[in-house]
Formats: sequence, C-alpha cells, structure tokens
Amino acid sequence: MEFWYTEKHTNDVKFSIRVDKQLASIDSEFQRIDVFESPAFGTFLTLDGYMMLTEKDEFIYHEMIVHPAMAVHPNPENILVIGGGDGGALRELAKYPGVKTLDIVEIDKLVVDVCKKWLPQTACGFDDSRVRVFYQDGLKYVRSCIDKYDIIIVDSTDPFGPGEGLFTKEFYGNCFKALKEDGIMVNQHESPFYPKDAEAMQRAHKRITESFGICRVYQAHIPTYPSGHWLFGFASKKYHPVRDLKVRKWKALDLKTHYYNTNLHAGSFALPNYVEEILRNVESEE
Amino acid sequence: MEFWYTEKHTNDVKFSIRVDKQLASIDSEFQRIDVFESPAFGTFLTLDGYMMLTEKDEFIYHEMIVHPAMAVHPNPENILVIGGGDGGALRELAKYPGVKTLDIVEIDKLVVDVCKKWLPQTACGFDDSRVRVFYQDGLKYVRSCIDKYDIIIVDSTDPFGPGEGLFTKEFYGNCFKALKEDGIMVNQHESPFYPKDAEAMQRAHKRITESFGICRVYQAHIPTYPSGHWLFGFASKKYHPVRDLKVRKWKALDLKTHYYNTNLHAGSFALPNYVEEILRNVESEE
Repeated sequence: MEFWYTEKHTNDVKFSIRVDKQLASIDSEFQRIDVFESPAFGTFLTLDGYMMLTEKDEFIYHEMIVHPAMAVHPNPENILVIGGGDGGALRELAKYPGVKTLDIVEIDKLVVDVCKKWLPQTACGFDDSRVRVFYQDGLKYVRSCIDKYDIIIVDSTDPFGPGEGLFTKEFYGNCFKALKEDGIMVNQHESPFYPKDAEAMQRAHKRITESFGICRVYQAHIPTYPSGHWLFGFASKKYHPVRDLKVRKWKALDLKTHYYNTNLHAGSFALPNYVEEILRNVESEE
Repeated sequence: MEFWYTEKHTNDVKFSIRVDKQLASIDSEFQRIDVFESPAFGTFLTLDGYMMLTEKDEFIYHEMIVHPAMAVHPNPENILVIGGGDGGALRELAKYPGVKTLDIVEIDKLVVDVCKKWLPQTACGFDDSRVRVFYQDGLKYVRSCIDKYDIIIVDSTDPFGPGEGLFTKEFYGNCFKALKEDGIMVNQHESPFYPKDAEAMQRAHKRITESFGICRVYQAHIPTYPSGHWLFGFASKKYHPVRDLKVRKWKALDLKTHYYNTNLHAGSFALPNYVEEILRNVESEE
C-alpha cells in the first residue's frame, strides 16, 4: 500500500509526503484538523488540507518568527502571540528569561488540544508558567488592547479561511495600537515565488506599511512550505531590524537554536532583487 | 487528461509539475535527456529524470553560481565552466566586459544541442564570441591545465551518474592546479536538508577543504530543487568571499540581475546553525 499526503502548491504544482498512518482527523468549529505520521518529516499537522508544521522542519519557522524581533527589542517583557495554537512560537519565546507575560490568542481550542496530544515537542510551549491562553478571535482581542505589548507575533494560517482577518488593514492598525511606543510586530508573510502567494505577500506588506513606520521583510528556507522560500514581515515603531540588532546581548543569553543565529539574522533581511521589486511596487502604487 | 512530471526528492517525498506536453526525449551516450512544457515553470529540462532547470527559476541558480565569485575576484579574465551545458552560467559570465576567455567543458554535446533548440533564453550564453566549447570529460580536461584560470565554475549534475567524478578529491585538486595563484572555484553543492543530500554536501565540502585554504558555503532559494534550500561551495586560494567583496566596483558594472545583489551576497554566506554544524563535523572528522 502507498499512502501519500499531497498539497497543491498551485493548481499545477504538487508536493507529496509518504504517510505511514493518519493519527487524527477532526472537524472543529473553524476548520478541518488532520495529523499524520510520515517517514520523511515525522508527525505533521494540516489545517483544511494545508501544511502547517512538521516535526522535522518546524524549528525553522518557529525560530524565525520569534528570535529576530526578540534580538532587536532591548527589553521585551510582554509578548502577544496571535494564532500559533501549536505552541511552537511560545516554546521559542519561553527561552527568554526576561519575558514576564506570554499571552496567546488562538481561535481554535481543538488545534491546541490536538497539538498537545500529537506534537508535544512543539506544544510544550504551553507549559511555561508565564503563558496565558485566550481562546478567542485575535482580531477582536487586539481591538481592546492599548499600549500593552512589546512584541506581537502574528502566527497565522494563510490569508483565506479563519486566518483571513489577520491580513487586513484594520487588524494591523489595531496591532499598532496594542503595541507600546517602541513595539514590534512580526507576521508570517507567505512566499514570494508563486504568483498567487506573491500577491498575498504584496497585499499584506502594503497594508502593514499603512500603519507602521519601519516595515521590512526577511526570509527563511522552509522545505515543507510552497517553494521553500518563506517570508516574514518585521513592522516596527522605533527599532531597525538590522541596525538595532543586539548581537552581544543575544549571544550572552546562550539560547539553543538550530536555525537562527545573529549572522543569519542580518543576512535574512538581504532579499533577492525580484522580491525587492515586488515590495517596491507596493510602495509606489500609492 | 492529467500529465505530471514527478521527481522523488527522497524515497518518501515527491515534487510534481503539471506538464502540457513533452518536447523532447533523447538517450545520449551519457544520459537520458527530456524537455517538458509546463504551465507553472515554462519549459524545463531533466537529465536521467532529475530536474536540471526550468525557464521560471533558472535565473536563481545561474546568477548564484556565477556572480559571487565574479564580485570577489578583482580582475577575472579567464574563466572555465565545467558542465553547464545549458549555457546559463555562460550567459551570466558573458555580462562582464572584463572577461577575455570563457571556456566550457561539457561532456554531452546533445545537452547543448537540446538546450539551444528548446531553452534559447538560457543557451544564448553560447552566442558570446569569447566562448570556446570543449566537448569532453571535465575531469580529464582539468588534468592538463596549470595556472590557467581566474575562476572555475563547476556546474555539475548530482554526484551520481556522469557527474560523479566532479565530486572527487582528485578533481578538486586538479581544479586547484588549473587556477592561478589567486583563483576561485565555485561548485554546486547540493542541499543540506534531506539526509542523503546533506551527506553528499558534507563529502564534497570535506574533499574541497583538502585542496583549498579558504572554503565557505553559501545558499540560495531554488524552488524546483529538493527542499528548495540549495548550497554552493566557494573555494579560494586568496580572496575571502565576504571581506573581499567589491561592492562599489560590482555596482558600477550596472549588470541586470533578478536574484543576486551585493547585500544578498554577504547574507547568503550566513548559514543556519544546523548547516554550520554539518560543515563543522566535516572539519573535525580528520
């Protein structure tokens, strides 16, 4: 028997992973949640059929959505994660002794429950005593927050389905207000390669530039995401993502990371010309 | 009708591209050569069933195998390409007015013929008047060269089949001798992600360090190669790949590139921790 999970990265490109068995399949109020066991990537989670994370490469995504902002902000104490129900972003954030509160707003409690059961090495982020979990709509949650967070990590799904509202101008504006005067917002920013993904990335970037003074994009190699070339948005009120990187301070923390380091931090903001062009086109559209 | 090209990136991971039609299929003396037309990637070439290049993303590979060395060497005049029968590396090299001779050694004339017919936007590299083509085994060719080239680009296939000899200690040693006293060799260096590819990458790096004093590895995002995370080796007798980068000089040339730029050059040498660890293990094995 051959058993394969296949995701269409576009209508004309497929990525398939051999599956040993399906571990869970649940229809929540918001989405379909599936967990598979695979020889190449270990356990992996999909939402509505789209790859969210695999045991083997989730460290790349989670380290890269967390550490760049944490290494730039001089004193990040109050952190908000929106989405991120797998706990991976929390796990990375909890490595910092200086963090005082770690709030997470996840709309779908079942995602958390499933990850705690099947992906404990990722969901262990929830075990930290500084974590407070709010099961509600991130969009609504940030509306009521003012001047509260040092860093907001928007660890959303793709810009359709339950994650759609997390790619709107209103949401980014509310994140801006929820941040303190020197706050930083990081979001997962889709891929620049396939035209449909590049459009989503371009739209998100345009909307973020309408709220934040400093908007930069950085990249990572994530093998299980479409094209393997993934982007993150770094939106900041005060700190520059490269010039304000605290290299010595971050190294002194002596955190264990498998992908991130401070050299790579600076390098990840150096984008290919074709990506820079997509981002420039956004800025000149207005 | 659905018509798909599928490559197994490992025994347990498949990457598939929808095909409109097959344009060519030839068995040469060395390998099977296929050309397909696809909606997502345009025309693409495979050798023995492995993806070599697609119209849509070949610019990344060819820019990244050529420009880093050209932007570091102060006066690259005599260049050798080994493999590279598609002409893409030649096309990028031919952009430099200072280049005097552009030698290419390709073992399989049919690859060149097929690319000239079906991938003219890549094979146009052969049109430059400085190009001299030698249809022979690159391994044998470099044996007879001493102190001849400023830069050698090893644009090989994977380390099995016809490309195997281009990953040996003997070959790298002969490249060292074929280079002038301040020469640079760049080679395609496989991917760090899947264990089998990482082993090939590690082996190649180990063998190169046995000949060259300066051995660094840099990375690029290539969507159609396994994992999308691709490495190149930068082996040098004198110049450091980042400290000796001639930013102003390179910018003054005003070359058109879609991926490469001098910021990205420096950034591409900043590798993830897990890749650095694989490379370090090589060095400590001895």
